[in-house]
Amino acid sequence: MTLDKNTKILIVGLGVIGGGYAAALTEAGMSVSCITKNQSDIDYALSRGMIARGTTELDPELIGGAELIVFALYPTVFIEWIRENQQLFSPGTLITDVTGVKGSVVDELQSILRPDVEFIAAHPMAGRERSGVEYSDPAVFRGANYIITPTERNTKEAIDTCRRLGELLGFARISELSPTEHDEMIAFLSQLTHMIAVSLMTCNNTPGLEKYTGDSFRDLTRIAKINDRMWSELFLLNRDALLRETNAFIDSMSHFRDLLAAGDGEGMRALMRSSTERRSLFDKPV
Amino acid sequence: MTLDKNTKILIVGLGVIGGGYAAALTEAGMSVSCITKNQSDIDYALSRGMIARGTTELDPELIGGAELIVFALYPTVFIEWIRENQQLFSPGTLITDVTGVKGSVVDELQSILRPDVEFIAAHPMAGRERSGVEYSDPAVFRGANYIITPTERNTKEAIDTCRRLGELLGFARISELSPTEHDEMIAFLSQLTHMIAVSLMTCNNTPGLEKYTGDSFRDLTRIAKINDRMWSELFLLNRDALLRETNAFIDSMSHFRDLLAAGDGEGMRALMRSSTERRSLFDKPV
Repeated sequence: MTLDKNTKILIVGLGVIGGGYAAALTEAGMSVSCITKNQSDIDYALSRGMIARGTTELDPELIGGAELIVFALYPTVFIEWIRENQQLFSPGTLITDVTGVKGSVVDELQSILRPDVEFIAAHPMAGRERSGVEYSDPAVFRGANYIITPTERNTKEAIDTCRRLGELLGFARISELSPTEHDEMIAFLSQLTHMIAVSLMTCNNTPGLEKYTGDSFRDLTRIAKINDRMWSELFLLNRDALLRETNAFIDSMSHFRDLLAAGDGEGMRALMRSSTERRSLFDKPV
Repeated sequence: MTLDKNTKILIVGLGVIGGGYAAALTEAGMSVSCITKNQSDIDYALSRGMIARGTTELDPELIGGAELIVFALYPTVFIEWIRENQQLFSPGTLITDVTGVKGSVVDELQSILRPDVEFIAAHPMAGRERSGVEYSDPAVFRGANYIITPTERNTKEAIDTCRRLGELLGFARISELSPTEHDEMIAFLSQLTHMIAVSLMTCNNTPGLEKYTGDSFRDLTRIAKINDRMWSELFLLNRDALLRETNAFIDSMSHFRDLLAAGDGEGMRALMRSSTERRSLFDKPV
């Protein structure tokens, strides 16, 4: 499939990410349709010119006419949707997603999907603390990572189309990982950081602390405002990898705590120097 | 003392904070002198008009002539400096500091200080990840907290002068806490966050992770670039309070980990909802 202005694109789920996709693709000159739960979200997107048309119905003509369908739903809702409605796809339809966990989702999806439809999984590594189409903003994709997680069931053509989709959306870096590599990476870089932010935010309820907050505490807890339904689903879908990363982090904190308890200034300084050196790898490219 | 353009101000230690103080006070129309270790730092500050004069010597005339002296040194260096050189002060001199831990420092300082000189402790809650006068920037004080930690040994006049200093430096909120309250607050809001950032930065050394980093990991590890000498001193000077906060945080992480291990989605969601609610208290005032 050549992804161009004539491609019939359907987005299912018009939330903060689905809305951002719609706006970015419309800006790129494409005509985007959408199916979502609430008419008010469709009205919002239409009034801002983010989509060409939208419906809350399972419109067979719209679904059957789509060549590329992007699912921007909660993981469990996504799988349920496919199970119940995949008879509406036309043969040859390509579907992709935005789910933040891959291994279990891709496995299950590809095993239940009809053989004449292809699912190529992708993870746009960009988000906002708020949910809902009114917070969607295609600018968050610029400078961000778009990760495609193909399996042996995927064709080169589908991978190429998905890569082209990431380009059209404006992502800075498009890469491929296996679903397992993706999930291990995301457990550390994203899921563990959210667990830390929530744990920090809830471990000291002394009143009035907010009066003295500096930037470091604010930075560490920015993501402590969290969509509880989505993140608990993502955590459970990646439980083993996240447990490994969490335990490694707790060990690391405990080791630091033990150095402090022992008054081992040199040991703490060595850790800080490693940290300073390793962090420089993670600076944003200028 | 009325702090005005005629007040003779001396800054001891021209690093990132001392340099910021010098620049802010000079901008406020005051004439600032400085004593520091390296001539190159003095040359830098002179060339940028940050100070009126500077020396690397323990100039008795400069020290004896100063009415207000700000010490912007490492905590241990600060106490050592006072012990060795306090005979150079004139009677009635007011001294203050920028040290990030108060209880042990204030106790020791006030107990060794000659009785005709007053020490009023203050903590400017603003900093940068880099050290050195060339990274100093008075803009970091704007919007930030300035905390004065008086004891029963302090006079109302000294507290008022210190408050006025915070205003001249441009701090948004000036408040008073006891040294103990300050140290408990700082253990949680600042020291624990640095320990978390260093522990996170050093707990997974998988090569190539930096290619996939998103904003959440970058935010949580911004302060993982850390001045190892200063922070290890601060941690050790506040060891008991920091150990308490660290243990509370490790307990909080372990509890979350146990919910995940048990597959308790509802328990995780409840934590995330508490976190989201509590975090809104900490939003930056608009």
